[in-house]
Amino acid sequence: MPVGTQGTVKAVSRNELEQLNAQIILGNTYHLFVRPGMEVIESFGSLHRFSNWPHPILTDSGGFQVFSLAKLRKISDEGVHFNSHLDGAKMFIGPETSMEIQASLGSDIAMLFDECPPWPCEESYARESLDRTLHWGQRCRQWIDDHRPCTDTGERQLHFGIVQGSVYREMREECAKALVDMDFDGYAVGGLSVGEPEKALYEAVDAAVRFLPTTKPRYAMGLGTPPQLLGLVARGVDMFDCVMPTRVARNGGAFTHEGLLNMRNQKFQKDPSPIEEGCECPACSGGFARGYIRHLVKAEEILGLRLISLHNLHFYLRLMERAREAISMGNFTEFRVEFTARYQSTSQT
Amino acid sequence: MPVGTQGTVKAVSRNELEQLNAQIILGNTYHLFVRPGMEVIESFGSLHRFSNWPHPILTDSGGFQVFSLAKLRKISDEGVHFNSHLDGAKMFIGPETSMEIQASLGSDIAMLFDECPPWPCEESYARESLDRTLHWGQRCRQWIDDHRPCTDTGERQLHFGIVQGSVYREMREECAKALVDMDFDGYAVGGLSVGEPEKALYEAVDAAVRFLPTTKPRYAMGLGTPPQLLGLVARGVDMFDCVMPTRVARNGGAFTHEGLLNMRNQKFQKDPSPIEEGCECPACSGGFARGYIRHLVKAEEILGLRLISLHNLHFYLRLMERAREAISMGNFTEFRVEFTARYQSTSQT
Repeated sequence: MPVGTQGTVKAVSRNELEQLNAQIILGNTYHLFVRPGMEVIESFGSLHRFSNWPHPILTDSGGFQVFSLAKLRKISDEGVHFNSHLDGAKMFIGPETSMEIQASLGSDIAMLFDECPPWPCEESYARESLDRTLHWGQRCRQWIDDHRPCTDTGERQLHFGIVQGSVYREMREECAKALVDMDFDGYAVGGLSVGEPEKALYEAVDAAVRFLPTTKPRYAMGLGTPPQLLGLVARGVDMFDCVMPTRVARNGGAFTHEGLLNMRNQKFQKDPSPIEEGCECPACSGGFARGYIRHLVKAEEILGLRLISLHNLHFYLRLMERAREAISMGNFTEFRVEFTARYQSTSQT
Repeated sequence: MPVGTQGTVKAVSRNELEQLNAQIILGNTYHLFVRPGMEVIESFGSLHRFSNWPHPILTDSGGFQVFSLAKLRKISDEGVHFNSHLDGAKMFIGPETSMEIQASLGSDIAMLFDECPPWPCEESYARESLDRTLHWGQRCRQWIDDHRPCTDTGERQLHFGIVQGSVYREMREECAKALVDMDFDGYAVGGLSVGEPEKALYEAVDAAVRFLPTTKPRYAMGLGTPPQLLGLVARGVDMFDCVMPTRVARNGGAFTHEGLLNMRNQKFQKDPSPIEEGCECPACSGGFARGYIRHLVKAEEILGLRLISLHNLHFYLRLMERAREAISMGNFTEFRVEFTARYQSTSQT
């Protein structure tokens, strides 16, 4: 899922996302709640209508940004009081509010409100935090059962639980089992990519995923590099969201099968070739040379980051498409090994 | 002509310009000379090939930016020594260099190298400056005759002279006549919109245009507001370039038939209507509401200025199209009066 933080995937348009075959995008509840605010989005009827995106949207719960962006936050069992990172305005999100906001946004998939503990995290705090996440999960479950929210097309809104538990395997297991008992439409593994080593990341996913039903979507939140995505697919993960394709693009980084290219590099100055030969993205198939893109990036022209964003989104979406194809063909392991070896064998940055 | 300062019309792509029916864009010789530099563009063969724009390009002479942007410039009859506004590098552009650079760029229309005097301008300096512009004009003519430059498709590169003379009617007349004697493919009126009142602008154009042949294109450089464009069309001007559609868009300003809208305005917060009803631009016909665009602009999302840039470019290009239609139909004056009255009757900003 390309990430549309503030109601738009940065630098790209709806038509472009459709051309890239993006099936679903992510919207950030915290960002939209803070600006433009629910009153504005409700006046349009839904986030789909407001942002002119008629295809599926998944919204996060707001938890992650409340913990990473907001100021002066005060966490209690009730929820989180915080000050907006934009203007310091006093705000509150708790489990019921998060569900309400996401129901108002009318997203197709809403995420449970959870606490995302930092890394490193003492076992005692991880315990306290997990108890709160599970308590909030029960309250979210109750709210959903009481309100049975729908999307703006009248479909039932789906709800995914989020497995927390920091790096503690037994807590991940406990959380996964407890959420499955509460019965949601899908399950995510959260609290990852907050600074922990890659090994800890995989262990946390392993500890959770084995207790999540294979008959429902399993989603690893906020990840990752291309080899990581394949590593997680190998572990049974079905869904991802990641800002990397667009964020890296805005810094001039382009993903290729040979690794990341820094498009600011002087060696591309007179290079007439596309970012990657054979790539079918609008930038590479549209006749835009590395030398021209380098110039655009150096000159801080918007077209430069637009072209790299399109390329990177295509790279990620195509990677997932190829993973699906390989799974169908029964040769995912070979595909993953080959892709990863090629990707990591060179360093072109 | 949409302006592609650094080898791209800011924020929009080639496909979008094609959809907007842009027939020709302008490239800034000074900007391209300073970055990426001629060695890079020459390695691609031409500006068309470098920037992936296979349609007509007009390049300015570099004069205007040398006088407005460069630092520590020293003007002599030879040309202008200056320091790059980017890194202070010492550079030189004179009449022959300007013609050489534009021949290397391979533009379809190249402009003569001229001096653009400031406003206000003493008569004595205007005289000295005009003598230099005419002297440079002769040297450009000589260079063109000696080199007979072609575009990268083998067409003869066209060359337009530029009428200077500040606000002095007799100098404008003298310059126009002298340039016509030198025989160029078209003629521009330059040195406008440098701070002078609108009345002085129209007088300067009137003083020049009457001596320029109606059988060749007449071009007013760097102008203007929508009513000004129609005012200049009424005076016989055929061509324009202007950064206003894109520059105003980046500040959140959208052109409409009722005047300029400031899309940051709070009153648009919940407005579900397009920027302008009935407008066929990609933003208005694509389902993007004022309220959403306002949010994008406030949140500094690139999509916001992309959408307004597309709208404004469409507005300008469509205005010129309608002026051409009205001229063909013989009702240009009515069209102009009606457009201008409606445009100026309201102030929605």
